Amino acid sequence: MLQVGLLGAGRIGQVHAGNIAGHKDSVLAAVSDVNTAAAEALAREHGTSARSTEDILGNDSIDAVLIATSTDTHSDLIEAATAAGKAVLCEKPVDLSLSRARACLATAEATGQPVMVGLNRRFDPNFANLKAALDAGDVGKPELLSITSYDPAPPPVAYIKVSGGLFRDMMIHDFDMAAFIMGAAPVRVHAVGSAIVDPEIGTAGDVDTAVVTLTYDDGRIAVIKNSRRAAYGYDQRVELLGSEGLLQATNVLENTVVKSTAAGVSSAKPEHFFLERYRRAYAIEWNAFVEAVPNGRALPVTLQDGINALAVAEAATTSAETGQPVEVET
Amino acid sequence: MLQVGLLGAGRIGQVHAGNIAGHKDSVLAAVSDVNTAAAEALAREHGTSARSTEDILGNDSIDAVLIATSTDTHSDLIEAATAAGKAVLCEKPVDLSLSRARACLATAEATGQPVMVGLNRRFDPNFANLKAALDAGDVGKPELLSITSYDPAPPPVAYIKVSGGLFRDMMIHDFDMAAFIMGAAPVRVHAVGSAIVDPEIGTAGDVDTAVVTLTYDDGRIAVIKNSRRAAYGYDQRVELLGSEGLLQATNVLENTVVKSTAAGVSSAKPEHFFLERYRRAYAIEWNAFVEAVPNGRALPVTLQDGINALAVAEAATTSAETGQPVEVET
Amino acid sequence: MLQVGLLGAGRIGQVHAGNIAGHKDSVLAAVSDVNTAAAEALAREHGTSARSTEDILGNDSIDAVLIATSTDTHSDLIEAATAAGKAVLCEKPVDLSLSRARACLATAEATGQPVMVGLNRRFDPNFANLKAALDAGDVGKPELLSITSYDPAPPPVAYIKVSGGLFRDMMIHDFDMAAFIMGAAPVRVHAVGSAIVDPEIGTAGDVDTAVVTLTYDDGRIAVIKNSRRAAYGYDQRVELLGSEGLLQATNVLENTVVKSTAAGVSSAKPEHFFLERYRRAYAIEWNAFVEAVPNGRALPVTLQDGINALAVAEAATTSAETGQPVEVET
Amino acid sequence: MLQVGLLGAGRIGQVHAGNIAGHKDSVLAAVSDVNTAAAEALAREHGTSARSTEDILGNDSIDAVLIATSTDTHSDLIEAATAAGKAVLCEKPVDLSLSRARACLATAEATGQPVMVGLNRRFDPNFANLKAALDAGDVGKPELLSITSYDPAPPPVAYIKVSGGLFRDMMIHDFDMAAFIMGAAPVRVHAVGSAIVDPEIGTAGDVDTAVVTLTYDDGRIAVIKNSRRAAYGYDQRVELLGSEGLLQATNVLENTVVKSTAAGVSSAKPEHFFLERYRRAYAIEWNAFVEAVPNGRALPVTLQDGINALAVAEAATTSAETGQPVEVET
Repeated sequence: MLQVGLLGAGRIGQVHAGNIAGHKDSVLAAVSDVNTAAAEALAREHGTSARSTEDILGNDSIDAVLIATSTDTHSDLIEAATAAGKAVLCEKPVDLSLSRARACLATAEATGQPVMVGLNRRFDPNFANLKAALDAGDVGKPELLSITSYDPAPPPVAYIKVSGGLFRDMMIHDFDMAAFIMGAAPVRVHAVGSAIVDPEIGTAGDVDTAVVTLTYDDGRIAVIKNSRRAAYGYDQRVELLGSEGLLQATNVLENTVVKSTAAGVSSAKPEHFFLERYRRAYAIEWNAFVEAVPNGRALPVTLQDGINALAVAEAATTSAETGQPVEVET
Repeated sequence: MLQVGLLGAGRIGQVHAGNIAGHKDSVLAAVSDVNTAAAEALAREHGTSARSTEDILGNDSIDAVLIATSTDTHSDLIEAATAAGKAVLCEKPVDLSLSRARACLATAEATGQPVMVGLNRRFDPNFANLKAALDAGDVGKPELLSITSYDPAPPPVAYIKVSGGLFRDMMIHDFDMAAFIMGAAPVRVHAVGSAIVDPEIGTAGDVDTAVVTLTYDDGRIAVIKNSRRAAYGYDQRVELLGSEGLLQATNVLENTVVKSTAAGVSSAKPEHFFLERYRRAYAIEWNAFVEAVPNGRALPVTLQDGINALAVAEAATTSAETGQPVEVET
Repeated sequence: MLQVGLLGAGRIGQVHAGNIAGHKDSVLAAVSDVNTAAAEALAREHGTSARSTEDILGNDSIDAVLIATSTDTHSDLIEAATAAGKAVLCEKPVDLSLSRARACLATAEATGQPVMVGLNRRFDPNFANLKAALDAGDVGKPELLSITSYDPAPPPVAYIKVSGGLFRDMMIHDFDMAAFIMGAAPVRVHAVGSAIVDPEIGTAGDVDTAVVTLTYDDGRIAVIKNSRRAAYGYDQRVELLGSEGLLQATNVLENTVVKSTAAGVSSAKPEHFFLERYRRAYAIEWNAFVEAVPNGRALPVTLQDGINALAVAEAATTSAETGQPVEVET
Repeated sequence: MLQVGLLGAGRIGQVHAGNIAGHKDSVLAAVSDVNTAAAEALAREHGTSARSTEDILGNDSIDAVLIATSTDTHSDLIEAATAAGKAVLCEKPVDLSLSRARACLATAEATGQPVMVGLNRRFDPNFANLKAALDAGDVGKPELLSITSYDPAPPPVAYIKVSGGLFRDMMIHDFDMAAFIMGAAPVRVHAVGSAIVDPEIGTAGDVDTAVVTLTYDDGRIAVIKNSRRAAYGYDQRVELLGSEGLLQATNVLENTVVKSTAAGVSSAKPEHFFLERYRRAYAIEWNAFVEAVPNGRALPVTLQDGINALAVAEAATTSAETGQPVEVET
C-alpha cells in the first residue's frame, strides 16, 4: 500500500483525495493546506488526519505526495518532496517561469525520485483511445491536428492576473495534448489572441480567445483554439487528419436523451466542466501513478513533459504579444 | 451508518459490495454465500467478514440486507429478513411464481419492514432523464412507448432451463420500465416469440427473440422487443412518442472516438453488457435505498412494483404459448 | 422516348409530372383530371396538353400511363389502360377491396401489359441501401425487423372516412417495406390500435395510433408502429436485427446545422413530409419504370406486391377490430 | 425567359448547363468551348446549339453568359461579355492576378452590367442556414470561426502548376466563406503550409496542407484548415463560436444507414466531392442569378466579393512563403 500525503485541500485536491482513498493500493495518510479548516474537513471525510506540510514531508512512513497547492508553490514543493525521498505527482503547470521549472527539474532529477505532472487529459479514455488508434496505424501518418478547448465561463479577473496568462494557464493542456498525439515538440509557434469575451481580461494584460498554430520539423501542423467562454459548457475535442483518414474525439454528453418537438431536435449538453468531464481521467491518472511508483516503472507523464508544454506556452505568449512567429527553445 | 449484510457474493453481489462499502452512509458488515470461498474472498476485498446467512439475519447490529442470491431463494429470504427486522433490497425477479411472490408480499408487509426490488434500470441516468422530461411535459401526453432490449449473447441453455423463460428473466426489466414510464399497468398483453438465435433454446421450451405489445385502458400502447443476441453488444433503448414530440434514450457508447477512412465512418460500440452499462445505475439505486431507509421515506421501487412486472411477464408467457392476447391480472 | 399520359393532376400527380417531363427517356404527352382546370394548369407548366382520360387511353402514340387519381378509380383505370395496350404505373393502394384488387390483377395480367405499383419507399436511397447491405450479408440472417412510420399530422376526418382506414391507407407502405426487406409474406398478423391523437378519428371508425406484429413461417418477426401525428415532422425509420448485427436507416434531416447554447444542443428536424422526404425516391421510381418498360424487363414492384400489402392490411384491420391474431391469406 | 450562353462545356459547365436548361425562367441558348466536340455534345444533350464565343457575345438575343472556362480567360471574358451588354455569372477565381482582377472590375463596372462570381458554397443550404441562424442572433456575437475543407485527393501536379497555388485555387472558397459569415474582411493573415501529402506538390512550389489564421479589426479570429487529401472523401465543415453559443454545419452523408456489428458501428461517408456535395448549391446559385438579373436586383455575390477573396489568398500565399503575418490590402 502506497502511503500518500496530499498537499492542498481545494477543489482539485478533493478530487485527488477521493481517488487516493478509493484506490485499493493507496492510502490517504495525511492532508495539508494553508487553510487548516479545509485540510481538517477533507481529512475527516476520508478518516485520516490533517498535518502540516513539514510533518508530511518529514514523515518516513509516507511514500508519496500529491501536490495540489497553488501554482507558485509547485517548484519549491517538488524540490522539497523529492529531497525528502517522496515520489511526487504534481498538478500542472510546473511553474509559470520556464527557467524556474528547469531548475526544479535539475534539482528533482538529482534526487532520483520519480516525479509525474498531472496532465490529466492524456488519461481521458476518449483521447487515449484516439492516440491508441493512431499508434495502431488506423489513419496512417499524422498530418494535421486540431484541438478545440473552450471553458464554460472565464475565471475572475483576479485569477487571470496571477494565472500566467491563457497560454500558460489554459492552453498548456492543449500543448501537452499536441505533444501526446504528435509525439514530438513543435519547432515554431504562431499565436493570435483577443480579449473579446471580456474587455477586463484585456485590461489585465491577457487574452480570452486565441488560435495557435504549431509547426513540426517534418511539415506536420497543429492548430489549437481556446476560448474562456462557451455558453453550452465545456468543449473539449481533438481531431487528427492522417494520410489514411480522420480521428475525432468528440465531447462527452451529460446523457443520451434526444427530444424532438415542433421546436426542433435537442440533445444534452457536454459535461459541464473539467471536474465532470475528466473525473474518470483523474482516477485513471492516479492509478497510473500507483501502478508505476512502487514497481520503479517509468511514469507516463514526466516533469520534462510539463516543461515542454511550458516552453511552448512561453513561445505562444511571446508570439501573441509581438505578432511574430516564435521558434521553440528545446 | 447503515450496517448492511450482503447475501450472495456472485457477479452482481460483487457490484453491490462495492457500492455498499463505497457509500459514505453505509457499511458492508458481512457477506454470505453458499459458496463459502466466494463469500470470504469478497469479504476480504472489502475488509469485512464472511458469515452464514443465519448469523447475518440474527445479528441485531445489522440494519439491512441486500439479497443477491439465486432467484429461487428470494421469497424465502425476503420473508426471513423482514421477520428479523431488516430492511431489504432484493435483486429481481422476486420469484418465478406470481402466487409465491404475492404471498411473500403479504408476509413482508405484515412485518412493516421496507422492501425494495432491484429494478436497476429506473436509476439509469438516461432513462431517469427521459422520465423527468416526460413528467415535465416536454412532449405532452404519452401515447406510444417502444423499448428495445437486446443482450450481447444468450446465456447457457442450462441457465435458460431454470430462468423462468425470457419474459420472466429478461423482459421483466422492460415490463418494469414500461410501468415506470407509463405510470400504469397494462390491461392486455400480446406476445410472439421465436427461438431463432439458438434452436437449443427452443428445445428447452423457451424463446430468444420476442415482441410484446401492451395496451392500456386509456388507449396508450407500448411495444417491447427482446433478443438474446446482438453481435454489437448490449442494446438498451427507450423511446416515447407523446402528443407534442418524441423522447429517445439511446445507447451509451464506450467512447466518443469517430474514425473516418476509405472504408467508411465508424464509432464505438455500446457499452458491452449490464455491468458496464448500468454501473452508475447500481450505485444510484443503492444511494436511493440508503437515503430512504434510515429516514423512513418511501422507497422508489417497491415489492409491489416487482410483482406487477412479474404479472405482466406471466401474461406474456401465456400469450406467447397460446398465440392469444391475455388480460393482465392486477 | 416513352410517351406518357398522366391521369390525375393533384399533389402527387404534380410530382410525377416533373419526373416524367424531366427524364431524358420519357415525355409528358398529356394530362387528365376530373378537375379540368388543374389538368390544364399542370399541362401548361410542362408545355403539354390537357386531355380526357378516354382520349389518352385511345391515343396509340401514348405508350404508358401513370395513374395518380383517387383510390376508388385505380382498379378500373388499370384494367382500362392495360386493355388499351398501355404500360401502367399506378399509385398505391391498388384498391381498398382485396377481392376487387385480385380481379384487377387477373384482368390486367390477361393483357400482358406491365403494371407497376407506386410503392415508392423501396426506392428511397436509405432503405434501398439497408436492403442492399442485408443482401450483401453485412448483418447475417434477418431476425427482427422494426418499422417506425409517423405522419406529421392527421388528415381531415373527411379523408379518414374514405381512406379505408389506417392499415390500408398508411401502414400499407410499411407492409410493403416489410415484404421488401424480409423477402416473404407474414403468416400471421396481430394489430392493436387506438384513437388517442384525435377522438373524432375513433368516432369515424378508425384508429390513429397502431402497433402491428407480423410473424413469418421461419420464426422471424416484424413490428410496425404508426401514428398519424409526430409534432416534429415525418418520422420514417427502419431497423433490422440480424444474426450478426443491426442495420438502421434513420431520418433525413432538413440540414446539418447543430446549435449549442445554454439551452442545450439542437439540430434540424426530419424532412417535413413525404413530398420532401421521398422526392428522390419518386424520381428513382420513375427511372426504374422507364428503364424497364421499353426493354421488356421485369418491373421492380408489381401489382402482386401491391396486393400482398393489401392482404396484410386487411388482416391487420380484422385483428385490430377483433383483438385476435389473424392468419394472412396468400 | 433569360436567354443564356454557356462558355465552357467541361465538368462544371455541364452542371451549369443542367441548371440553366432546367430552370423555368432561363433557356440554354448556346454553348461554346475550345473543344468543339465537347460543346456540341453538351448542346445536343440539351437540345440547343454549339456556337463560337464570338457568336454568343455578338448575339443580341442572348441576355446573359455563364463563364465556365479556364481561369486564365475569366477576366478577358468578363470584360468582353459586359462590353457586349450581357449579364455575367463567372466561375471562381476571377483571376490569379489580383491587379488584373481589379482592372477587370473597373472595366466591367463601367459597363453597368451585373457580374456575379460563382462562390457556390454560400448557397449550400447548410452553410446558408448557419449564416441565417447567426444573423438571427441565435448564438450572439461571432467570435471565433473555424472552417475545415479537405478534398478527397490531390489533383494532378500538372494542374497544381497552373492553379495559382492552394491559397488561390482551393482556400479561396474558404476565404469567401469567412467573408460571408463574418461580414467583414480580415486585417491580417498568417499562413503555414506543407507538402506532406505529396512531395511532388512541394517540388512544384505549392503546399497541400495548410492552416491560415485571419484576424479582424475588432478582435475576432478565423482559422481555416485545408488538405488536398482526405481518405474518406470531401470534408466541408464550418463552425462558429459566438458569445452565446456554437453553430456547426457538418458534412452531408451519402445516406442515413448505420450498421452495428462485432466490428463496430459504421455509417456512410460524406458525399464524395464538390459535384455531389454542392449539386443543390449550384442550382440555388443559378436561381439567385435568374431571380436577380431581369429585375435589376442586387446580386448576392459580386465581382468585388471575388476580388476580396483573392486579396486574402494573395496575402496568405505571401505569408506562407515568408513565414511572417501579412496585412491584407483592401
